[in-house]
Amino acid sequence: MPAFDIHAYLKDRKLLIDRALDRCLKECKPYPQTLDKAMRYGLFPGGKRLRPILTLASGDLFGAKQKLLLAFASALELIHTYSLIHDDLPALDNDDLRRGELASHKLFGEGIALLVGDALLTEAFHLLTRPQVVRSLEPELILELIHEISHAAGVCGMVGGQVVDLETEGREVDVATVEYIHARKTGALILTAARVGARIGRAAPKDLRRISRYAEFLGLAFQIADDIADAVDQIQAAKDSERKKATYPSIVGLAAARTRARELLDHCLKELEPFGKRADPLRGIARYVGEQVQ
Amino acid sequence: MPAFDIHAYLKDRKLLIDRALDRCLKECKPYPQTLDKAMRYGLFPGGKRLRPILTLASGDLFGAKQKLLLAFASALELIHTYSLIHDDLPALDNDDLRRGELASHKLFGEGIALLVGDALLTEAFHLLTRPQVVRSLEPELILELIHEISHAAGVCGMVGGQVVDLETEGREVDVATVEYIHARKTGALILTAARVGARIGRAAPKDLRRISRYAEFLGLAFQIADDIADAVDQIQAAKDSERKKATYPSIVGLAAARTRARELLDHCLKELEPFGKRADPLRGIARYVGEQVQ
Repeated sequence: MPAFDIHAYLKDRKLLIDRALDRCLKECKPYPQTLDKAMRYGLFPGGKRLRPILTLASGDLFGAKQKLLLAFASALELIHTYSLIHDDLPALDNDDLRRGELASHKLFGEGIALLVGDALLTEAFHLLTRPQVVRSLEPELILELIHEISHAAGVCGMVGGQVVDLETEGREVDVATVEYIHARKTGALILTAARVGARIGRAAPKDLRRISRYAEFLGLAFQIADDIADAVDQIQAAKDSERKKATYPSIVGLAAARTRARELLDHCLKELEPFGKRADPLRGIARYVGEQVQ
Repeated sequence: MPAFDIHAYLKDRKLLIDRALDRCLKECKPYPQTLDKAMRYGLFPGGKRLRPILTLASGDLFGAKQKLLLAFASALELIHTYSLIHDDLPALDNDDLRRGELASHKLFGEGIALLVGDALLTEAFHLLTRPQVVRSLEPELILELIHEISHAAGVCGMVGGQVVDLETEGREVDVATVEYIHARKTGALILTAARVGARIGRAAPKDLRRISRYAEFLGLAFQIADDIADAVDQIQAAKDSERKKATYPSIVGLAAARTRARELLDHCLKELEPFGKRADPLRGIARYVGEQVQ
């Protein structure tokens, strides 16, 4: 039997998600044109689409309907994209580039970038309450999922983590603090992305706990891999970090960070064992993150 | 029978709303402390609380439960407050003051102000999906109301209106364009605030249409009154507007703007006639907006 081809899988899922995001924009009809253009610029071509792909993969494992999964996956990507656009603003990271292209605020101006972020966040909740979604899933479950998503994106998740990150800038921090920031700033939404898929598929509580642990390990490994890539870039460019952010390798060193990331990914794979071959996509995602650990 | 005392009514309702907002913050436990402080700074003491008071008043007219009304009223005020904090940022209006006090970004810095706005918007949806709310209202109706609120706050409402406003800055515009901007930028959320109350109270379709027309007229009159106040301030301070925004009096002149606002308020009152004395709070709100027309 041929090995599972994670790269083909990721490519295929990204296509599905891109189409769903495009439909979402067509349906919400942003006006004026600048708003539509700037929302599309933020969303396309996009990055790895890790969060929405996790929703699809964990939902598939439990036999959830793809159409429903795509609505939630799209909403999570809208939220992720808003957070990147706001992060890049001069008030926060002041990044001129995002994935090698001009950041939204460099192309459209800061005012539009701010508003586009606001629009994407708002649209996520609008999308999840559309009649098509409400007709296809128990209303109580939709409300619980919106509660979980807004929790992950809010003061106890992404935004809270951002504020702690901002406050610790330039200060000495320990590993526990970095893990705390990562768990909220990026981990919370990654965890929720996987959980939402499993919950739509009505995973048994025990299975939902497994998927949650998988996603927690994965989220932290993903962030450490990202920190390592940044650190390697900085060494290669022999430049100092302009804003001293708390990162894993800056505290424990590159070698220990790599070891930690690989350890976490081993934990991920362990959680998937009871699901056998059916969990190959989730397994592939963990291995793919492993490939990113330089 | 003594006349309805709108000022006592507004004061009393503001107190109820302030308490509900305080409870909401206590329950969502923002961390770190800066986030909690900055969220509170944006929310308190607050302004007129027009939107949440409209929700209470229109809900009361149809006998809706106050506890439920307060949850939706608070969510609308969270959304309104986020929009003010983001509006004041240098990237948009660059206002140093809000209601005579330092704007959030002047006190906490632009980064925190940006994140606090994001947090307040996200928290609105978290609040509306809390178990206490879900237990007290049909889940289908909650989903419809979240859909309506996110529509009013999003690309077809507040954010969309902001972008059109930003794009027309410094350009010659006509009355239709100003009314279009007002209808989306401020009108949409005011309309929704009144509708949400009526819908929680299960208003009959005909009554809901009346309340909707009332709120549309009120929202526009309110914005024209605001434009007039700004214009009068500018004349008194003999200063030019730093950023030329499309306003009602700048196009039709002060006298015609005043006439238009009063006309709209007459329309408001007309819509309330069939409800008799029970609509005194909504009537009082329209008269109160009339008092603001200088």
